[in-house]
Amino acid sequence: MSAGQGPRVTVWNEFRHEKTDEKVRRHYPEGIHATIAAGLREAGLAAVRTATLDEPEHGLTEATLAETDVLIWWGHMAHREVDDAIVERVHARVLDGMGLVVLHSGHFSKIFRRLLGTTCNLKWREGGDKERLWVVAPGHPIAEGLGEYVEIAEEEMYGEHFDIPAPETLVFVSWFTGGEVFRSGCCWQRGAGKIFYFRPGHETLPTYHNREVQRVIANGVRWAAPTPQAAARVFGNYKPLEPLGR
Amino acid sequence: MSAGQGPRVTVWNEFRHEKTDEKVRRHYPEGIHATIAAGLREAGLAAVRTATLDEPEHGLTEATLAETDVLIWWGHMAHREVDDAIVERVHARVLDGMGLVVLHSGHFSKIFRRLLGTTCNLKWREGGDKERLWVVAPGHPIAEGLGEYVEIAEEEMYGEHFDIPAPETLVFVSWFTGGEVFRSGCCWQRGAGKIFYFRPGHETLPTYHNREVQRVIANGVRWAAPTPQAAARVFGNYKPLEPLGR
Amino acid sequence: MSAGQGPRVTVWNEFRHEKTDEKVRRHYPEGIHATIAAGLREAGLAAVRTATLDEPEHGLTEATLAETDVLIWWGHMAHREVDDAIVERVHARVLDGMGLVVLHSGHFSKIFRRLLGTTCNLKWREGGDKERLWVVAPGHPIAEGLGEYVEIAEEEMYGEHFDIPAPETLVFVSWFTGGEVFRSGCCWQRGAGKIFYFRPGHETLPTYHNREVQRVIANGVRWAAPTPQAAARVFGNYKPLEPLGR
Amino acid sequence: MSAGQGPRVTVWNEFRHEKTDEKVRRHYPEGIHATIAAGLREAGLAAVRTATLDEPEHGLTEATLAETDVLIWWGHMAHREVDDAIVERVHARVLDGMGLVVLHSGHFSKIFRRLLGTTCNLKWREGGDKERLWVVAPGHPIAEGLGEYVEIAEEEMYGEHFDIPAPETLVFVSWFTGGEVFRSGCCWQRGAGKIFYFRPGHETLPTYHNREVQRVIANGVRWAAPTPQAAARVFGNYKPLEPLGR
Repeated sequence: MSAGQGPRVTVWNEFRHEKTDEKVRRHYPEGIHATIAAGLREAGLAAVRTATLDEPEHGLTEATLAETDVLIWWGHMAHREVDDAIVERVHARVLDGMGLVVLHSGHFSKIFRRLLGTTCNLKWREGGDKERLWVVAPGHPIAEGLGEYVEIAEEEMYGEHFDIPAPETLVFVSWFTGGEVFRSGCCWQRGAGKIFYFRPGHETLPTYHNREVQRVIANGVRWAAPTPQAAARVFGNYKPLEPLGR
Repeated sequence: MSAGQGPRVTVWNEFRHEKTDEKVRRHYPEGIHATIAAGLREAGLAAVRTATLDEPEHGLTEATLAETDVLIWWGHMAHREVDDAIVERVHARVLDGMGLVVLHSGHFSKIFRRLLGTTCNLKWREGGDKERLWVVAPGHPIAEGLGEYVEIAEEEMYGEHFDIPAPETLVFVSWFTGGEVFRSGCCWQRGAGKIFYFRPGHETLPTYHNREVQRVIANGVRWAAPTPQAAARVFGNYKPLEPLGR
Repeated sequence: MSAGQGPRVTVWNEFRHEKTDEKVRRHYPEGIHATIAAGLREAGLAAVRTATLDEPEHGLTEATLAETDVLIWWGHMAHREVDDAIVERVHARVLDGMGLVVLHSGHFSKIFRRLLGTTCNLKWREGGDKERLWVVAPGHPIAEGLGEYVEIAEEEMYGEHFDIPAPETLVFVSWFTGGEVFRSGCCWQRGAGKIFYFRPGHETLPTYHNREVQRVIANGVRWAAPTPQAAARVFGNYKPLEPLGR
Repeated sequence: MSAGQGPRVTVWNEFRHEKTDEKVRRHYPEGIHATIAAGLREAGLAAVRTATLDEPEHGLTEATLAETDVLIWWGHMAHREVDDAIVERVHARVLDGMGLVVLHSGHFSKIFRRLLGTTCNLKWREGGDKERLWVVAPGHPIAEGLGEYVEIAEEEMYGEHFDIPAPETLVFVSWFTGGEVFRSGCCWQRGAGKIFYFRPGHETLPTYHNREVQRVIANGVRWAAPTPQAAARVFGNYKPLEPLGR
């Protein structure tokens, strides 16, 4: 990553709801990616670009990924339209050290399921729940600057059981008015790459304008950014040792 | 453990509230331990005894512990009265393979804090919350026979942050009416011993008469019971090897 | 699983080396699968069948998988010939609760990489190393009946870095004469299914005739067998709750 | 921590062997702590002080601990002489966010056992083993700048089983000439504090003059240093919420 700028971020968005649904456009007239990118810039991350599904190669060319330290992923209605070859490309980059922050309905994206190996299924309900995301890992860099919980006045409900591998670190657990809980901030490492799943962000609600939500995403980017060494994976070019002591 | 009987269980209870508080005696006239023990017997565990604080050596003699595969612990108002020497004795037995099931306010017991090394602090509120314990580890033996969640019509609230080492397995997450969540079913191993913390069980409420709560405790006992090998810890009598190849 | 018999096991083997390589046939004249199956039967597992690559559907029909509690997997030279549709079928069964025991060069099988999401790469060397598999999780059911370590007089070396998700439980760490170590007994859960990777078993060596190796595989099968509830995954048919308290 | 200086480190050493044993003095004429401190300064950590057992309050006054971000601990022959009140003081500071790096024979120190809750027992042998510490978590900040392994020409052997809670992250696994392995770089969090155990450093050998060993210790200090928020633990002053929705 370029010194002084922090990690180089690419915010990827499916960018379909915004084109057809007035309820979505109202909150995200330039797309969810634009709002997320603006929030990251305000949080001090200077090197932020965006990419969307309908660009050539979904905007995720080899060149773009090579210059990306952390990729953010928002998708929902068009997961199936994401080209398998691009998924493999992103997958390889994550294993080589690129961080990945998966948001909300991205739980069903090809790249998330490819990395985690499970169905990533969950329960859901639209209907005006309040959400409280409780910090269960105080001191974790992703919770930096937050209080005991983040409250979102209205969100879509996601409920357990969430079919994921047990998180290596669980940062947030959500409470919903309607009676459900959810492991809503989850960390894993795959290869040299760090993965952060963060639950909130229904397209018809102004969640990504929430300052605390923006803060969590910025914290997640900083946490997921690779260390200098992460890219230098060591097993590829191993020269078998001469056995010792014989 | 004796074949055919399942693990030998000792249910330990402070047994103080029941002697002085009518609201407690109403639900547990013979003590919380008696109700828990009855529930275990109904669940098919034949070898169940009880022990209480005011017995000699708190009922936890060397002989009793030597014949105990799993110890259940309920305490609240008199944690400080538990003799440090007995705590050390129980601690040593857990490291040698005895299972330990810690209930509710036992989170502040000396033995639990001794094993986990943290303050085990949490938030709490009495006041008529409903509790739902969601299963986040379906397929785990402690969740055997349950549905998606266990609901308790009224319970004391415990809230995050719960200051424990990250659970090795998280089985339940609780939802409370008042807006909180809690990691309410947590597993760890220390030495050869397995530890299960299970949140419900406020003394003024009939929680331990709840069939599903009884089922979870019985499941926890079966999970925490040592394997035959667990008791044979191997590092104590290690004879340093002759180095190879020199 | 059928009561009284223990889990129903299918031992899958690529079964190619044995047909062409005299050094392999010498140790496994009827195939590696036959030797593994015989070892399981001696260990008291009655319901053991086998399946191989060149059978129709690789011997892994829907019917066979439906009657399999734990699948054992050995493959090496022909990973690419395993049909992707069969891999998806096995993957779905694991997520639904079938246990999976992956042996040795199976680390590069499609099913293992599909479940874990990483490259599963490692270092290796043929050349007469002695291997010692140290038990680092005494008391774990997979180590039941073993001493401090299992020693194999000659084995292929596998060395770190092994590119896997951090094991949820690490049971064995191997030492090799030539100067390497390896996380050689690793447990994970994916969906409702348990996965055990066990390192030893080079095709030109008599490893699967070793009684302790056989014991570990039998222990692994018993550990990976699903609990009754595991198959009943709960999120598929969730009926959104009526929100409470509104 | 003071900006620009990095974390404030206190290197604690028992400092007894050096006073009486010529073989130790040869390598550490001013004490093991002095050599470790010099290595940290060379690694760019400016704020390094030392403390030893025979100073008043073992050099670990309230004031010193309040100004310490990360404490390094080396002890061996005099663990029992460490005052229990000081152990409690250090314990409380770790739970409040101070990092702790425990070296070599510090595995039997009161503070390490207090935090982990187990015996921390292990096997050992003096006798000229070579040690190779393999990196099993490439990309982890503690492995930053290292190759595939760190080799130490001669070290005391420590062998499994090491009776610790399963590490939350396992960074190094050691290989020894004589046939043993050891989990030699282990991370845990307790309360808001991070703990790193690092195996090497026998007092009669020049291990702490090894540049790669120094690098690991410096990396460990940087990893264990608290985030700004870590000190602000949130459960202490919780004001019970007004329940919602009733």
